[in-house]
Amino acid sequence: MNVIHFICDYAEGAHPNVLKKLEETNLEQTEGYGEDRFCRAAAERIKELCAAPEAQVHFLTGGTQANLTVIAAALRPYEGVIAAESGHIACHETGAIEASGHKVLTLPARDGKISAGQVERLCREHAEDPVKEHTVKPGMVYLSNPTELGTLYRLEELEELSQVCRKRGLTLYLDGARLGYGLAARGNDVSLPDIARLCDAFYLGGTKQGALFGEAVVLCAPRLQEGFRYHIKQRGGMLAKGRLLGLQFLALLEDGLYWELSQHADRMADRLREGLREAGCPLLVETSANMVFPILPDAWLEPLARTYTFSVFQRVDGDRSAVRFCTSWATRPEYVERLAQDLRRLADSTV
Amino acid sequence: MNVIHFICDYAEGAHPNVLKKLEETNLEQTEGYGEDRFCRAAAERIKELCAAPEAQVHFLTGGTQANLTVIAAALRPYEGVIAAESGHIACHETGAIEASGHKVLTLPARDGKISAGQVERLCREHAEDPVKEHTVKPGMVYLSNPTELGTLYRLEELEELSQVCRKRGLTLYLDGARLGYGLAARGNDVSLPDIARLCDAFYLGGTKQGALFGEAVVLCAPRLQEGFRYHIKQRGGMLAKGRLLGLQFLALLEDGLYWELSQHADRMADRLREGLREAGCPLLVETSANMVFPILPDAWLEPLARTYTFSVFQRVDGDRSAVRFCTSWATRPEYVERLAQDLRRLADSTV
Amino acid sequence: MNVIHFICDYAEGAHPNVLKKLEETNLEQTEGYGEDRFCRAAAERIKELCAAPEAQVHFLTGGTQANLTVIAAALRPYEGVIAAESGHIACHETGAIEASGHKVLTLPARDGKISAGQVERLCREHAEDPVKEHTVKPGMVYLSNPTELGTLYRLEELEELSQVCRKRGLTLYLDGARLGYGLAARGNDVSLPDIARLCDAFYLGGTKQGALFGEAVVLCAPRLQEGFRYHIKQRGGMLAKGRLLGLQFLALLEDGLYWELSQHADRMADRLREGLREAGCPLLVETSANMVFPILPDAWLEPLARTYTFSVFQRVDGDRSAVRFCTSWATRPEYVERLAQDLRRLADSTV
Amino acid sequence: MNVIHFICDYAEGAHPNVLKKLEETNLEQTEGYGEDRFCRAAAERIKELCAAPEAQVHFLTGGTQANLTVIAAALRPYEGVIAAESGHIACHETGAIEASGHKVLTLPARDGKISAGQVERLCREHAEDPVKEHTVKPGMVYLSNPTELGTLYRLEELEELSQVCRKRGLTLYLDGARLGYGLAARGNDVSLPDIARLCDAFYLGGTKQGALFGEAVVLCAPRLQEGFRYHIKQRGGMLAKGRLLGLQFLALLEDGLYWELSQHADRMADRLREGLREAGCPLLVETSANMVFPILPDAWLEPLARTYTFSVFQRVDGDRSAVRFCTSWATRPEYVERLAQDLRRLADSTV
Repeated sequence: MNVIHFICDYAEGAHPNVLKKLEETNLEQTEGYGEDRFCRAAAERIKELCAAPEAQVHFLTGGTQANLTVIAAALRPYEGVIAAESGHIACHETGAIEASGHKVLTLPARDGKISAGQVERLCREHAEDPVKEHTVKPGMVYLSNPTELGTLYRLEELEELSQVCRKRGLTLYLDGARLGYGLAARGNDVSLPDIARLCDAFYLGGTKQGALFGEAVVLCAPRLQEGFRYHIKQRGGMLAKGRLLGLQFLALLEDGLYWELSQHADRMADRLREGLREAGCPLLVETSANMVFPILPDAWLEPLARTYTFSVFQRVDGDRSAVRFCTSWATRPEYVERLAQDLRRLADSTV
Repeated sequence: MNVIHFICDYAEGAHPNVLKKLEETNLEQTEGYGEDRFCRAAAERIKELCAAPEAQVHFLTGGTQANLTVIAAALRPYEGVIAAESGHIACHETGAIEASGHKVLTLPARDGKISAGQVERLCREHAEDPVKEHTVKPGMVYLSNPTELGTLYRLEELEELSQVCRKRGLTLYLDGARLGYGLAARGNDVSLPDIARLCDAFYLGGTKQGALFGEAVVLCAPRLQEGFRYHIKQRGGMLAKGRLLGLQFLALLEDGLYWELSQHADRMADRLREGLREAGCPLLVETSANMVFPILPDAWLEPLARTYTFSVFQRVDGDRSAVRFCTSWATRPEYVERLAQDLRRLADSTV
Repeated sequence: MNVIHFICDYAEGAHPNVLKKLEETNLEQTEGYGEDRFCRAAAERIKELCAAPEAQVHFLTGGTQANLTVIAAALRPYEGVIAAESGHIACHETGAIEASGHKVLTLPARDGKISAGQVERLCREHAEDPVKEHTVKPGMVYLSNPTELGTLYRLEELEELSQVCRKRGLTLYLDGARLGYGLAARGNDVSLPDIARLCDAFYLGGTKQGALFGEAVVLCAPRLQEGFRYHIKQRGGMLAKGRLLGLQFLALLEDGLYWELSQHADRMADRLREGLREAGCPLLVETSANMVFPILPDAWLEPLARTYTFSVFQRVDGDRSAVRFCTSWATRPEYVERLAQDLRRLADSTV
Repeated sequence: MNVIHFICDYAEGAHPNVLKKLEETNLEQTEGYGEDRFCRAAAERIKELCAAPEAQVHFLTGGTQANLTVIAAALRPYEGVIAAESGHIACHETGAIEASGHKVLTLPARDGKISAGQVERLCREHAEDPVKEHTVKPGMVYLSNPTELGTLYRLEELEELSQVCRKRGLTLYLDGARLGYGLAARGNDVSLPDIARLCDAFYLGGTKQGALFGEAVVLCAPRLQEGFRYHIKQRGGMLAKGRLLGLQFLALLEDGLYWELSQHADRMADRLREGLREAGCPLLVETSANMVFPILPDAWLEPLARTYTFSVFQRVDGDRSAVRFCTSWATRPEYVERLAQDLRRLADSTV
């Protein structure tokens, strides 16, 4: 038998409905570059779900593409983007933001999150700096929700961040690569319309949420909308057969499939969290969406790696490490069960 | 009935075999980012077809993405890329090359092509310029084959271009968005191994050749290979589910499907060329691949546009324009037949 | 004896008054980075001369620095700058504009100049292009006055260019590296206040006009003013001892020295034009400022080069070339006289 | 009376010998762009002083210009530059490095310095990262000596840094804006030939060391030398009257003036350190070059600010701050004496 992947939420292809939709429309001829009826329909659907009739929706192929395009479109040359030290744009995009000319201004994160207070302080320090023109001006706040640590912003936190951004003239942008998993998580108190109301831009992830690939960028602030298609083309993100992206989002948003798949992943993660509790494994950080960061004895890693893939996140102490398990729309219950049992068995044998 | 699209070669989805391959493997779990077994197999297959065992093959999502990534990877900051005035990177990529910091040095094209002599002259002029450090240094030659005008480089022309590039230290890069259509065209005397031998890098198109999306970048020169995956990620071109690209190329290259589809498109274009001859319509330029540029009376354009889409390429004189018709792997014979008849009818009624 | 330089207008140091001013203030302590009293005074003086009390004036070290900073500050990422094919930014800045991410959209020039009609046509073509988002959007017009060919825009031409720029939403920017020589030329009908009124930004040259180095960038349009000092610092153009630039402009603008020096250069060029007429040498282009482009027999070049430096501009026919002679604020009358005599002698001996 | 500036080392013009040299040669005609005999002579002199006959020397106008040009020339697009968190490129160049496309990879500094061990660790972590292609590759180490905190690298530290850079394929670059002050400091054990031997590139500061402006970039590694003049021109750093830079360095290096001026500044700082000791003020960090960081009671700041300028560096505790005093080649002994007395007086009155 092959190994079972818990290493990420993009190990499979797409939900069957997505493939079916692609097939059904396969030989239909349409306009290129995202100007077809499927993209239009998907954009309308997303604006409805966001309760944001004035927003623009654009479909891009991936998350880094979305991030670098939105950020380069929003910032002036001397502005930088504020992000958590652990933020994806700060760590895992090979300097894509810098390659478009902008500095990432990092803030220490608490469980992957940054706060309105931190942003306000940074802006105030910049504004009061007698040589501020020798430093990068904060121009944007980048959040991810769920964060890289799988945690969620609470509505109150987002409200405060939005407020400080508006006060300080910063664009608020939310990376929603796993937004569905976040919205479906137990205890989450944020809705899609909240996000559309509080952020200037965000994207609703497809790649990790059941699509083959693709992210839906939602531009809420009018100032970001002008000329955005030029940006997409210039950065290499405009798909010739743009319809593929519209079609996939149509399939996912039909009859609430997107939310159903998100819930599935979160329930699988809940079961895994339960299994970890049973096995006596503490968590590095409390999460309720689809990523789980248990602290495991190093001695367990090799036996587990024979059956499962996962990533080693960080060393915790002399003989324990935090690892990351991801569930997804495609995670099979029997695999989570099996992992829970294996963890229990390791716990038992350790005692 | 809907209009019939001759406006481009990406109006449909993908060849059914491509979708079938995606479905068959859909729930299989693989590594991400193009490091899976499908990408490896497709890369091996392409290297075999190119007779280039030392080459590297990388799969990117689209043509602009491929062009900007290869060009930015190859050039030093003060170098520019030589291209035909009509070249895609010079005209239709929203300044993507400039956005990565490099000037496109344009040469007047003859039927869409540039010559070794022109390149040599430009390099010599640069080398002899007493203030050459005030000008951009030529660092690369960009060709497309077929060109934007649907024409093909002859083997002799490519040999000469390759020679001058090697002599002058320029990287030779060939944009093969429609390379299959070029290789399958009547009269073509260039093979894939020729291209791999003569160029430092090129890409074999998927998007316009029967895939949903995707291009296979082949790096022949070792100096271009180092660190190329960093470039892909930085430019936003690294697909999380990279396998989608490998799988599509595997499907297309199985049993020669790629060449069969290419031939089909070219034969459809041949039939259209014949129809145009019958209708007495001259061609702007002689082509043998899948793009046809007839010169039509302006009075025909509106009647034709009721049934067909096509692009108006340029005004030729007071009452005639050159238009572009594209065939593709998906073009139905009955549609070409119908277009040929409609052209004949317009010709008859005009007399 | 050394050769006599007519190759450029920056072969000497500075006008003695400039050095004197630097010396007189040398040990005075001031703030850095252009925030000292000399820079403030020089900026005020320039705004007065421009009749532009709302303008901002910034001092930069050189022309390429000024051009790349203003252009990068004004354009959005997908916008390009329109320039004459022969424009300095298009030819002689090693792709500095492209290095900041922007394409230079070249227009064929007539005697170094471009027209409002050409700009309007380019903008209209862009606006009407069905795939305009695949092309670079014109965002600025770059002129130089005098042009690279030493010619001058007439007031009417500038008025029309300004009008089309305002209509089309383009920034109008004028490179005034030799602006004094232009304003002092016989037949010129443009004034500094005209330029400040019609352009959104321009610079008043120092380097070629009697300073050691330095250019005064005048930002007339409020939208260009915000954050400009950040741009200067980011591009490496903010001089620690910024006062050096303010002081030099103060020296040059005192008692009209700048205009006096400009006139001197133009009168020297007038004398050279007269000498050329006497020697029967035609001009490539009619100029009235400090650059002269005679067409000379190739046989004359070597004998002339024994005594004088000049640049060979272009080949004209089988045995003649156009060359460029520059005069400057420092050109000595006896040298021009001598050159005129030598030309006459060559003409006599040729007959 | 005016305030006395201790806020920086560039509050005055230049050493009189520099001005004298500019005057003596003022009306001499030379080639432009740094290809004149003065630049050649100054470059030769610097190579001699560095015992680096194979090095290239280029003169640029300022420090940010030098840094961004060298760094952009050395790195490939996906590489970043390692620097101390407090490094000038990380904090005070308005993102100039990012504007050229590269990330600054910061390391926590100890007294402004980073260590070979830190660099080795970062490189090893990168090399061992399973997703390293998603992160920026370290390509260079940037040091400043003296650092931003006025401290100096010991020879042993530089040797180790050089060794790890060579082992890991990193370019070692040293920002020598105040290098003279560093070399002349008590206890310094590094020489100019050491630096040329251990670094791949560095610059010898002029602006802060007695010149009007200008830095001498020394490229020791042959791979950095190719095409460097193109980089300078592209980044806007090529002065038309390049001779101004060569002349200034000639003046400064004549009869050891550069070292004499450096020693003067350091002795002035020594006197100030003595005065601070007498006044019982601790230092934030031990330094021996021209910058002094005493910790002063906040109550002293306002009285001191009536007579002196200085910068407040950081808050230390509830009622004390670290401030920065700079001496320079131009600092007058009587001013330091007066400051020392005022500090003593404040100390006495505080008790």
